[in-house]
Amino acid sequence: MPSDHLKLTFTKLFEPQSVAFIGATDTPGKWGFTILHHIFQGGYQGRLYLVNPKRPAVFGHPCVKNLAEIEETPDLAVIVIPSEKVLATLDEVIAKGTRAAVVITSGFAEANEEGLKLQNQLVARAHEGGLRFVGPNSMGIVTSFPHRLISTMGSMKPRPGRVAVVAQSGNLGVTFMSRLERRAIGVSRGISTGNQASLAVADYLDMLADDPKTDIIAAYVEGVPDGRHFLEMTEKAARVKPVVFLKGGKGTKGAKAAKSHTAAVSGSHQVFLASVREAGGIVANSMDELINMIGAFHSNPVPKSNRAGILTLGGGWGVVGADSCERFGIDLPDLPPDVYKTLDDILPSYWSRGNPIDTVATTDISTIPTTLEELFRSDAFDNVLYLGIAYLAFQGRRYMDKGPAHGPLFDKIGQFLVNTEYQMLDRIVELRNAYGKPFFPVADLVSRDEVFPENIVHALEERGIFVYNAPWQAAHGLAALLERANWLKRAQTARTVDVAPDRDALVEAQRLVRNAVGGKRRQLAEHESKRLLAALRLPTTRESEAASVEEAVEAARLIGYPVALKVSSADILHKSEVGGVALNLATDAEVRRHADRLLKQGKVLVQRMAPASAVELLVGLTHDRTFGPALVFGKGGVETEVWADTATLPAPVTPDQAERMIDATRMSKLIAPFRGRPALDRAALVDLLVKVSRLPELFPEVRELDINPLFLYEKGAMIVDAKIVLKNGDENGR
Amino acid sequence: MPSDHLKLTFTKLFEPQSVAFIGATDTPGKWGFTILHHIFQGGYQGRLYLVNPKRPAVFGHPCVKNLAEIEETPDLAVIVIPSEKVLATLDEVIAKGTRAAVVITSGFAEANEEGLKLQNQLVARAHEGGLRFVGPNSMGIVTSFPHRLISTMGSMKPRPGRVAVVAQSGNLGVTFMSRLERRAIGVSRGISTGNQASLAVADYLDMLADDPKTDIIAAYVEGVPDGRHFLEMTEKAARVKPVVFLKGGKGTKGAKAAKSHTAAVSGSHQVFLASVREAGGIVANSMDELINMIGAFHSNPVPKSNRAGILTLGGGWGVVGADSCERFGIDLPDLPPDVYKTLDDILPSYWSRGNPIDTVATTDISTIPTTLEELFRSDAFDNVLYLGIAYLAFQGRRYMDKGPAHGPLFDKIGQFLVNTEYQMLDRIVELRNAYGKPFFPVADLVSRDEVFPENIVHALEERGIFVYNAPWQAAHGLAALLERANWLKRAQTARTVDVAPDRDALVEAQRLVRNAVGGKRRQLAEHESKRLLAALRLPTTRESEAASVEEAVEAARLIGYPVALKVSSADILHKSEVGGVALNLATDAEVRRHADRLLKQGKVLVQRMAPASAVELLVGLTHDRTFGPALVFGKGGVETEVWADTATLPAPVTPDQAERMIDATRMSKLIAPFRGRPALDRAALVDLLVKVSRLPELFPEVRELDINPLFLYEKGAMIVDAKIVLKNGDENGR
Repeated sequence: MPSDHLKLTFTKLFEPQSVAFIGATDTPGKWGFTILHHIFQGGYQGRLYLVNPKRPAVFGHPCVKNLAEIEETPDLAVIVIPSEKVLATLDEVIAKGTRAAVVITSGFAEANEEGLKLQNQLVARAHEGGLRFVGPNSMGIVTSFPHRLISTMGSMKPRPGRVAVVAQSGNLGVTFMSRLERRAIGVSRGISTGNQASLAVADYLDMLADDPKTDIIAAYVEGVPDGRHFLEMTEKAARVKPVVFLKGGKGTKGAKAAKSHTAAVSGSHQVFLASVREAGGIVANSMDELINMIGAFHSNPVPKSNRAGILTLGGGWGVVGADSCERFGIDLPDLPPDVYKTLDDILPSYWSRGNPIDTVATTDISTIPTTLEELFRSDAFDNVLYLGIAYLAFQGRRYMDKGPAHGPLFDKIGQFLVNTEYQMLDRIVELRNAYGKPFFPVADLVSRDEVFPENIVHALEERGIFVYNAPWQAAHGLAALLERANWLKRAQTARTVDVAPDRDALVEAQRLVRNAVGGKRRQLAEHESKRLLAALRLPTTRESEAASVEEAVEAARLIGYPVALKVSSADILHKSEVGGVALNLATDAEVRRHADRLLKQGKVLVQRMAPASAVELLVGLTHDRTFGPALVFGKGGVETEVWADTATLPAPVTPDQAERMIDATRMSKLIAPFRGRPALDRAALVDLLVKVSRLPELFPEVRELDINPLFLYEKGAMIVDAKIVLKNGDENGR
Repeated sequence: MPSDHLKLTFTKLFEPQSVAFIGATDTPGKWGFTILHHIFQGGYQGRLYLVNPKRPAVFGHPCVKNLAEIEETPDLAVIVIPSEKVLATLDEVIAKGTRAAVVITSGFAEANEEGLKLQNQLVARAHEGGLRFVGPNSMGIVTSFPHRLISTMGSMKPRPGRVAVVAQSGNLGVTFMSRLERRAIGVSRGISTGNQASLAVADYLDMLADDPKTDIIAAYVEGVPDGRHFLEMTEKAARVKPVVFLKGGKGTKGAKAAKSHTAAVSGSHQVFLASVREAGGIVANSMDELINMIGAFHSNPVPKSNRAGILTLGGGWGVVGADSCERFGIDLPDLPPDVYKTLDDILPSYWSRGNPIDTVATTDISTIPTTLEELFRSDAFDNVLYLGIAYLAFQGRRYMDKGPAHGPLFDKIGQFLVNTEYQMLDRIVELRNAYGKPFFPVADLVSRDEVFPENIVHALEERGIFVYNAPWQAAHGLAALLERANWLKRAQTARTVDVAPDRDALVEAQRLVRNAVGGKRRQLAEHESKRLLAALRLPTTRESEAASVEEAVEAARLIGYPVALKVSSADILHKSEVGGVALNLATDAEVRRHADRLLKQGKVLVQRMAPASAVELLVGLTHDRTFGPALVFGKGGVETEVWADTATLPAPVTPDQAERMIDATRMSKLIAPFRGRPALDRAALVDLLVKVSRLPELFPEVRELDINPLFLYEKGAMIVDAKIVLKNGDENGR
């Protein structure tokens, strides 16, 4: 639940009974002119107050000189004045008692250091005065209930509807809402977040989760200021409605552009995707995909399974459709005998006899609705794809074209085809409503664009059935529904694990870390790093540091042969590359010889050789710019970077998440039974992953951890090498 | 160059002065009716003869009863009659002297065995009579020069132009050509290949390569009957014009649909893609991509480099655009000082100061053409992207919308914005023509669709400038141009290698293979397989087969310790899994002990232990269903399948291709200097790959080869294990 204050903000921001528009002007070219024009065009039915000290009226609408002149307290202030005047104006707004504002003005954090300072002042002043605001540097907001308010720089005409749009880029948001309108999908609320100074994406998700007028949320995000809160609010919203994201700023160049755009800092793209998915968000890769996914959620219930039946009017579409279903993990079962029989009776002798069902250019178009009904009716299919909707009408329209062979006969044929398509449309709506199965009709773009008295595709979309432009888009839409269905199922099975550290060892290790930080050290040596892990009762190699050859021999005897010797230095990253490691030493003499050599580089670590392992794993912690501490798992050993076979999630993780991280890598195949050898101890690995992911809670000074390699056996695991990087002074201070 | 006969076919098929339409009817619902309607609508200006024994006239056009009644020899026959009558009719056509036909009729190889037989008879009769034909099961053909002929089942109106379309699915082809028309891109020839019985995709590529009316080829392919010829013709065409493919039947389901669709057999998708790219083809993944790539080639010259400058009217588009460029390897250099200075003078103080150049919602739209000119002018950029074309006109159009705030002032503003956009359009065409740089304007779909007296995007496309719908599509279009530019460069540097086998060893090995085939064996044992490789002077381990313990000891002494012992059986696939291998034996006693054990499973192979290698590689031959023998390279060892890190190309390969295969895998990073150790012998690997790829020429009976592992050293390589699968009797017979 959002705080009461956020509930108040929601009401004032999205359900304003009165709006003060500060910066009203009738000078074309100014944004105050354009936005006001859009408010008028949108036909706002609440009370609108125009504020301009210099003009008696704008667009024939009387102006007040300042807020004090308004007789009531406006619910919302829209501010479109030069940046240097915004702070003083905000004070007036607060004084008036208004508790929500939209700051269109730019020139703040996105511009320069000075702008950032001004923005911080703005936030401080506003929050002190109990006001929260959209922007600055926002393109505006849209709301549909109870009064339509279109208060944006970009022109658009969204219909009232069930989709909320949150956009960190105003023009993308405007374009997106206009494209929804063309697909007969309406908008409940639309927000251009701007710099997210007072209200961030997470806050909008928080509010929209509770908004009864919003059934689906679409969000374009470049970077989020508080990653953890963002994930929590994503999950909060996802539990009650679909949340679909489009992410900008994926690569380094994009991230650079993102930074200069809204002063946002993009985190690593892969981590973002994995994290959002864990929180129940669906991720689109382009605006087209976003539209298709929103369309899929808008017009369909949750599918019962991934089994789909395809009817195609053309073989090529069928091929492409089957390819797409396979790509997205959608099952195309064979036709059950009853369906087969029905179709075999009505289709031409050379019909496809399989799924996809290809009507093979049949000229008897009455078979199409019958075939479609079979797919809806049969229990073998929980989803129905129809490739070629609008094609008959399109062909019919062409018969009616003027041209050398035009005439009444052709008009008649054309009209017949168009009518047939419309009748089929009625039948489809009936079938969809009767059977309640997710339905994915595809019209190729040419058929879609054909303009009839009433465009056929548009007619279908007006009746709430979203139509896709290509088979892969339909398959992708269904895949999004399935992804959400799976998440909803698994979201109920999350469980946690008690870390149960060794309390004494923990206190010791925490002291060690504090001392290191106090000594301005940035790294812990291997044996120090392992003490932290051992405090979590994680399995580490027996070992001991030695400063002389004789100490080394003594340690080796105590630990038991065979042993390994390593230079014990926090500064050497790849010990083996500098000859700093000697493995498998079995006698005192061998230890002496190598210790003598290695001690020239510093102290040595004498370590019990771990038994050979079938796999070398990497387990680590990294500090993600968006989400903070994150757990990394994957292929370890010297080839880690070559294969880049890793999964990352914000820490801590649940055991279920650890399982999914393992499954997301190819190492899962090597942990399973492999070429005759039994499975390795996956349970021990999951336990270790969960515990390592809790390390940052117990040791907040730790910034990064590398366990590499981790050995995994048929029973148990062994941390063979580990390294910890500490935060620097600043990071610890905050 | 195509054969003279193919040249004749081309002329008769695509430039017919006269056409006999066999199966003319005025019964609506019959394909003979529909296609004839399309021919008339298209306004064919040659001589058209309608053949129907039962009617005096169709559509008021007189009919002849049979071909004999026609006074001339028609260049082309279009056949739309029931399948059982096609063979006899073809005889008549041949008798008349006609040498080209289009067989629309279906019910042949795509339907069943009987249909296949009939189709084979058709081909035999036709080729005997000197006639070649499109189809059967074709949706027809289109040609634009010298006379327009639209002889297709699907209705369409392509304008005459420079793009040829070859489609293995008729409806995809029709949709594609209609979509080109909407982008103001014309068609030279269009072919629905049908079953490819007499003329296959390769033949069309062959003819279109030489067609002076065709500058670009687009092809939708599901499967090709003669993969090698197809690749040759792809390369022939690619040397003189861009060839862009869309491949259907990628997955197993798609391939299944493909088979039942046109009786085509799809080869493995990855091999297809790699092979086509090596031959100079460009590959699109969807029809949208195909359109964008054709558009890119249609409106642009070859780019000088991958450096691009972006102007964006909105920050979000800039972020997405930069992401896309990074994804496709397009470089966005920083702004050079002169450009920076010019822009700093004219743009708002808070402009982006980088590439992409974001005008940050400037209201002074005169800066847009100036900024664009800077990008065209500066040597820092060889390509220009403009994100937001048509946006001004779109906004302007909205000002003119009726609504509560409509009025003369808003009309004026709207008109001003629209006019400005049109003036900019003129300026853009000037700039593009003056500087000759590839240019990629992007209009979001909403702006594109806005209907003006003259739609702005359409106006630009009518002037030959293709407009993309999303930033990533523009980047992808540029990437296609760059891919072709790179191929054209490298196509000139191909070189071959003399295999220079050991002649005596070769004769011996060929005898070995013949004996094995004679004995109905399907596999060669390891030592036999290595004899074939040794005949190519490839490095194999010293080894000897032994049938007794004493023979094994003697062999080990002769070969030199340490040795490995392996069960010598062609039937055991994974010897190590059944305990059939003993490694690193250093003494007679060890050899005795293991030989005694292993000899219970059959003879043993005594092998010199190869020195340890930093990498284990896989080199193999496979038999691809489309292209036949293909070379495979990648990660070897027991984890080969886990990582699936392989590249495959049709054999034989050139040294350059071998280099690219290595680079296509992650093994290239391990072959390079790695973590302090020097590079491995890449030259030896390339030599080995090229020679192995020639093996099928010397041993046509070999179907598959596995060299796994191949060891690679700083100097030289060693084939440690090898296994050969022979073709079965049928395969050898053909």
